[in-house]
Amino acid sequence: MLTKEQITDWFKLLQETICDALECEDGEGKFQEDNWLREEGGGGRTRILQNGNVIEKGGVNFSAVHGNVPSFLQKENSDSTSSDTFYATGVSIVIHPNNPMVPIIHMNVRYFEMSTGVWWFGGGIDLTPHYVDATDAKLFHQALKTSCDKHKSNYYSDFKKCADDYFFIPHRNETRGVGGVFFDRLTSTQEMDKEKLFAFVQDIGNTFAPVYTALMNKNKNKFFSEENKNWQLLRRGRYVEFNLVYDKGTKFGLETNGRIESILMSLPQLASWTYDFKPLKNSEEETTVSFLRKGIDWA
Amino acid sequence: MLTKEQITDWFKLLQETICDALECEDGEGKFQEDNWLREEGGGGRTRILQNGNVIEKGGVNFSAVHGNVPSFLQKENSDSTSSDTFYATGVSIVIHPNNPMVPIIHMNVRYFEMSTGVWWFGGGIDLTPHYVDATDAKLFHQALKTSCDKHKSNYYSDFKKCADDYFFIPHRNETRGVGGVFFDRLTSTQEMDKEKLFAFVQDIGNTFAPVYTALMNKNKNKFFSEENKNWQLLRRGRYVEFNLVYDKGTKFGLETNGRIESILMSLPQLASWTYDFKPLKNSEEETTVSFLRKGIDWA
Repeated sequence: MLTKEQITDWFKLLQETICDALECEDGEGKFQEDNWLREEGGGGRTRILQNGNVIEKGGVNFSAVHGNVPSFLQKENSDSTSSDTFYATGVSIVIHPNNPMVPIIHMNVRYFEMSTGVWWFGGGIDLTPHYVDATDAKLFHQALKTSCDKHKSNYYSDFKKCADDYFFIPHRNETRGVGGVFFDRLTSTQEMDKEKLFAFVQDIGNTFAPVYTALMNKNKNKFFSEENKNWQLLRRGRYVEFNLVYDKGTKFGLETNGRIESILMSLPQLASWTYDFKPLKNSEEETTVSFLRKGIDWA
Repeated sequence: MLTKEQITDWFKLLQETICDALECEDGEGKFQEDNWLREEGGGGRTRILQNGNVIEKGGVNFSAVHGNVPSFLQKENSDSTSSDTFYATGVSIVIHPNNPMVPIIHMNVRYFEMSTGVWWFGGGIDLTPHYVDATDAKLFHQALKTSCDKHKSNYYSDFKKCADDYFFIPHRNETRGVGGVFFDRLTSTQEMDKEKLFAFVQDIGNTFAPVYTALMNKNKNKFFSEENKNWQLLRRGRYVEFNLVYDKGTKFGLETNGRIESILMSLPQLASWTYDFKPLKNSEEETTVSFLRKGIDWA
């Protein structure tokens, strides 16, 4: 029977594998590591790379925290009382590149259990290009589809739809980027037991490094203008809006007294907001915005 | 009897007076005006100044909106049902200056009424220096105290305390700046009828222009280094965090389908986040952080 320790150990290993791959592709930047403890129980290993060759700011964070079930989760789970405890572990990644032609990427894979016996896996991975490149979006979604298809035939289509719904900024009426997959509260069914679900989560985790290093490699030396850079900063502003207003991981972190510098590593080195900025007609920026909607079949 | 039209007209006038004073002190920048209508009822007059001499980005917005009482307000007011309507009008200001030695300022004055007969005034004004200057903080608080003292002896101390509590970033355990005054749901009492409350709100509104133009004038030509500029961008990052995570005006705007570009004018042209940035020992930055706490008697 799969234990939380085994899951935790694998997440730690995933963090290492991904950091190694990113450092290698970056060529210059090195992750700095901060180990931290959480007062209420557990802690984490935060790894941040700043001012690299390709990566301007990126975080690959592992954490494993435990304590009393927070009140907002007690409400959602009627079986749970204030004397129940939880254990949560996972890896969270956000990478902001220097070059606007390299997309932002995010991944989170996590496991959660309560002393009530309830447990689930969750996760997601999504790509936020500053300029949408259909070839890149296709490569990304096909890799995710391949990983999903190994486990269950409806996973990709179901979780791709969830990503469209989750990585969405209602007040802008646009998606954060070209989406990806998102899944939450995956628990055992007759077909998928805990081991099988974990194998799926592992495959999603293992998809990250090869796909993103390929996108880094393909785009990192592309020319960009000052206009491209300004557009990148505006798109990063939207990323900040999503993370601070809607992101559940950020909310969970803030409400469980998480380590703030680890939670907010997702925010870029530099972001901007220009009043009522509108892309020029028929510009690449306008084309990108036209792709920021749900339901595009990239794979 | 004071009508909502009279209050609305005065808020419009306040917007004009303040824009004139800011343009005059800036010397270069001009406000651009956007009139907008809200689908559910009402609208506003947004005025934005970008790339001025002193002001990098600033908004002075008037709005008067009406419609059905939003569900989150129905919950808070048990008398209210879904068939009730509301009317809300006010002026909201945020100014982000170029020079890090000039503080950021925010003010909001507003009036709200429901068809149930319930009504209230609310408002607040607070100063966010990138570098806390005790003389400036004192000047600012003394002006607010003078305006409050004309109306009720406990207003300044009560509303100063409310501002300390409201303009606070729990996840950073620091105040947004040196505070100011904050009040909400001011409705008539035996001592203070609607006219008297409006006179108080008017005095707060009228305090803005002379105080802030004095602070602009005093600090706009001060020397600043690249380090000072970087620090300003980090402090603006905190400002973004407060506005997107905690600010009630932003929440109200997003939840009542407000005009998004008017609501988010509060966000700066440029902001930054550096992982785990810590000011140097005994630096001016460290001194500033030491002042970002509740309960300092600036007046």
